[in-house]
Amino acid sequence: MAFVGASAGFGKWGHSLFANLVAGGYRGGVHLVNPRGGTIAGRPAVVRVADLPDGVDLAVVSVPAREVPALMPQLAARGIRSAVVVSSGFREAGEDDLEARLVAEARAAGVTVVGPNTMGILNPHAGVYCTGAHVRPLPGGVTLVSQSGNMGVQLLSFAAAQGLGIRAFCGTGNEAMATVEDFVEALEGDRETRVVVLYLEGVKDGRRFYDAVRRLGRVKPVVALKGGRTAAGQRAAASHTGALAADEAVFEAACRQAGVVLVTQPADLLDVPAALSALPLPRGNRVAIMTWGGGWGGVVSDLCAELGLEVPPLAPELVARLDRLLPPYWSRTNPVDLVGEPDLELPGRVLEELLAWDGVDAVIHLGMLGRRPYVLGLIDSVRRADPDIAAAFLATVDQASEAYERECLAQSLRLMERHGKPVIGVSLMPDGGGRTLHEVAGVPGRAVVFPTPERAAKVLAHLWGYQRFRSRGG
Amino acid sequence: MAFVGASAGFGKWGHSLFANLVAGGYRGGVHLVNPRGGTIAGRPAVVRVADLPDGVDLAVVSVPAREVPALMPQLAARGIRSAVVVSSGFREAGEDDLEARLVAEARAAGVTVVGPNTMGILNPHAGVYCTGAHVRPLPGGVTLVSQSGNMGVQLLSFAAAQGLGIRAFCGTGNEAMATVEDFVEALEGDRETRVVVLYLEGVKDGRRFYDAVRRLGRVKPVVALKGGRTAAGQRAAASHTGALAADEAVFEAACRQAGVVLVTQPADLLDVPAALSALPLPRGNRVAIMTWGGGWGGVVSDLCAELGLEVPPLAPELVARLDRLLPPYWSRTNPVDLVGEPDLELPGRVLEELLAWDGVDAVIHLGMLGRRPYVLGLIDSVRRADPDIAAAFLATVDQASEAYERECLAQSLRLMERHGKPVIGVSLMPDGGGRTLHEVAGVPGRAVVFPTPERAAKVLAHLWGYQRFRSRGG
Repeated sequence: MAFVGASAGFGKWGHSLFANLVAGGYRGGVHLVNPRGGTIAGRPAVVRVADLPDGVDLAVVSVPAREVPALMPQLAARGIRSAVVVSSGFREAGEDDLEARLVAEARAAGVTVVGPNTMGILNPHAGVYCTGAHVRPLPGGVTLVSQSGNMGVQLLSFAAAQGLGIRAFCGTGNEAMATVEDFVEALEGDRETRVVVLYLEGVKDGRRFYDAVRRLGRVKPVVALKGGRTAAGQRAAASHTGALAADEAVFEAACRQAGVVLVTQPADLLDVPAALSALPLPRGNRVAIMTWGGGWGGVVSDLCAELGLEVPPLAPELVARLDRLLPPYWSRTNPVDLVGEPDLELPGRVLEELLAWDGVDAVIHLGMLGRRPYVLGLIDSVRRADPDIAAAFLATVDQASEAYERECLAQSLRLMERHGKPVIGVSLMPDGGGRTLHEVAGVPGRAVVFPTPERAAKVLAHLWGYQRFRSRGG
Repeated sequence: MAFVGASAGFGKWGHSLFANLVAGGYRGGVHLVNPRGGTIAGRPAVVRVADLPDGVDLAVVSVPAREVPALMPQLAARGIRSAVVVSSGFREAGEDDLEARLVAEARAAGVTVVGPNTMGILNPHAGVYCTGAHVRPLPGGVTLVSQSGNMGVQLLSFAAAQGLGIRAFCGTGNEAMATVEDFVEALEGDRETRVVVLYLEGVKDGRRFYDAVRRLGRVKPVVALKGGRTAAGQRAAASHTGALAADEAVFEAACRQAGVVLVTQPADLLDVPAALSALPLPRGNRVAIMTWGGGWGGVVSDLCAELGLEVPPLAPELVARLDRLLPPYWSRTNPVDLVGEPDLELPGRVLEELLAWDGVDAVIHLGMLGRRPYVLGLIDSVRRADPDIAAAFLATVDQASEAYERECLAQSLRLMERHGKPVIGVSLMPDGGGRTLHEVAGVPGRAVVFPTPERAAKVLAHLWGYQRFRSRGG
């Protein structure tokens, strides 16, 4: 990769981008171009593109806008056919002619341009972290294409915190050449991409977008948030990228017809893909809820019902089976209240009964994780308040609580695999980490645990909506 | 305080409750009652209530249910007029007669009972942390009354993580004597209570509740979540506390008429009070948005518009004033995009112009906090990738970024005070902490910053709804 406009100046794009790439562990060659030559960050800089070595695949361009068009033939002359143009000062700043000139030069030279005015790209599978924000989500199956760079890197930073693996990211910038339609077409054939996430403000060719997203939606799930759904949002979007304000109702209807999972909040753009990439789809809308305490179960029943999910009463034969596991005064209804029983194998046994029952399609497990902060709080209090309790005993409790959380995840993974139904966990207490995807050593698969029940219920409703689309034949 | 049923057994209620109180720093006397006497946690235990010293104010009872009624006259004989009965095994387990006997004994003895089957109580102002979950929110002005103990302690643990100060908490349990209606009546005169939060499943005396909550709502805001809004949720709530399923529509209408801020998600029960306890109320529904990047601003404009908030275009005279502060290519619309300008005083100046404009009633400041993780990521990359940048320089950048975040908060606090309009911040990147309330040394007041824009927009809509109620004369 070559950085055209490389700079020694801290805080400049020409410095930040290659520093990010190098620090991110990129193993390919990194070449710097700066008209003054010399050394930048301990690396030699060549003064012209013409001085670059053979074999450069991609140029990352951050020189002033007016210098960008003339670079295109220079890149082509060195065999560089792809350029990510980070430079701003084109159409978004009213410089439409300059942008047209860039496109003309790029077309003539046979160079494909991403941008200009893009926040950069990511390919964690190849160790390519090349965005203005230095966030490094792990490699994974989710590809994010964003028509807003800042929305894009924010989502990436949340993805990193949540443990959501990324296949690729592209901030499309002004879309002078490569448009969101191109990305949607290209992702259809990308095997590494399991789920596609789109942040959209407007598409240039609605027909082509619709055809491409419909084809894409047949082979993998597409989750999209459209900015500018309201007049207020459209004013903002229009001033931002200059995209045409599409007829919102038509756009939404077309997306739904194409099976796109449409969401309205930025957080949904990560929660829904986390579940889609880790869980089987529910075959219906009936959900069983496991809870530690009746109040919580009731609140989540309401949230589910308000989202179109059914929380069915338990069949008598299932109640009879659960009677053997639970204390005599258990609730005998759905949600199943585990009523604070200290039996550490109980959640797994109840979960197995619920998943085996043909009356539900999914389980929300309230308190699947998050008991540990509570146990740690108790241990800390007892250590301070009770000299009679041995430190060694408290250490054992601590270890047992850690093992319990791990075993809860492991049981959930094994039972999901066996029964082919999704289980979504909700954390009992905040642990500060914010992870939504959890792995357990030695057990295949990933468990999905949200910090709040509303996120779990909403995601399950979206999974069901997507499955309904698929079961109709797409 | 006396713990009747005190135990040396780790994990038992009779151990956990006093350990929590002692570790929480309670400065009053702590007395233990256990029929075997001896020493528990290094403290002497008396064998009978009759052996307790004079001056005990409150008994926390965790003996088996069948032993509780007979305790009431014993407590009265020692002058103890209040009991928090944590023991379960009463009405919630089908033991209605036992609960009736408890009430009869308590009435006869003149003892007021909270519970039975309560998760405990909190009064952080008096250092009383006496719940099964060892979470210790700071003292503050929010009082939480919860008809579900587990919902209550979960909310407390989130409150602690978010920095929301608590005046008092009570899990009302079975409400055999003290009911939610009593608490609502009592809170009207409690000066320390600035905001009341209710988690409800059902009220016994709807007329009394309505009258009390209407009186309460005239003097301080009340935020409530009702579990059992749907048939599914009512089934769960009914099995849990045995409360009568009220007519939901009537209940909601009555609450709205009384000015209660009704919410549907548990997280709202903390977000709305955080804002109510720290911000002035908006006098209308017009909001200005400050953003770092157009995409984010557009998404938040949509969220605001969909919640009934107006995002008005900027008046020409305001545009002219902002022209003097912002670069020539700025958006000239609302949201105001600060377009990544490095001027550290810019956000404060723009905020001041927006607040001074009589065309808006509130400001949402996207990126008020959360730049620091980004700066730290950049510093970390540069440290690894560029040997030419001096460590001392990077340390300076680090300090400057910390100072910048502090100054952003301080400016916001000063300007809110000056203009009497609320400013709600949204964090640019997750910092893992989860705090929503922030203080700055030397500046009065607290700033409210949410980690996601949907929470900010939703809270602002609730503030406006509450102000609309108040401006109609309550």
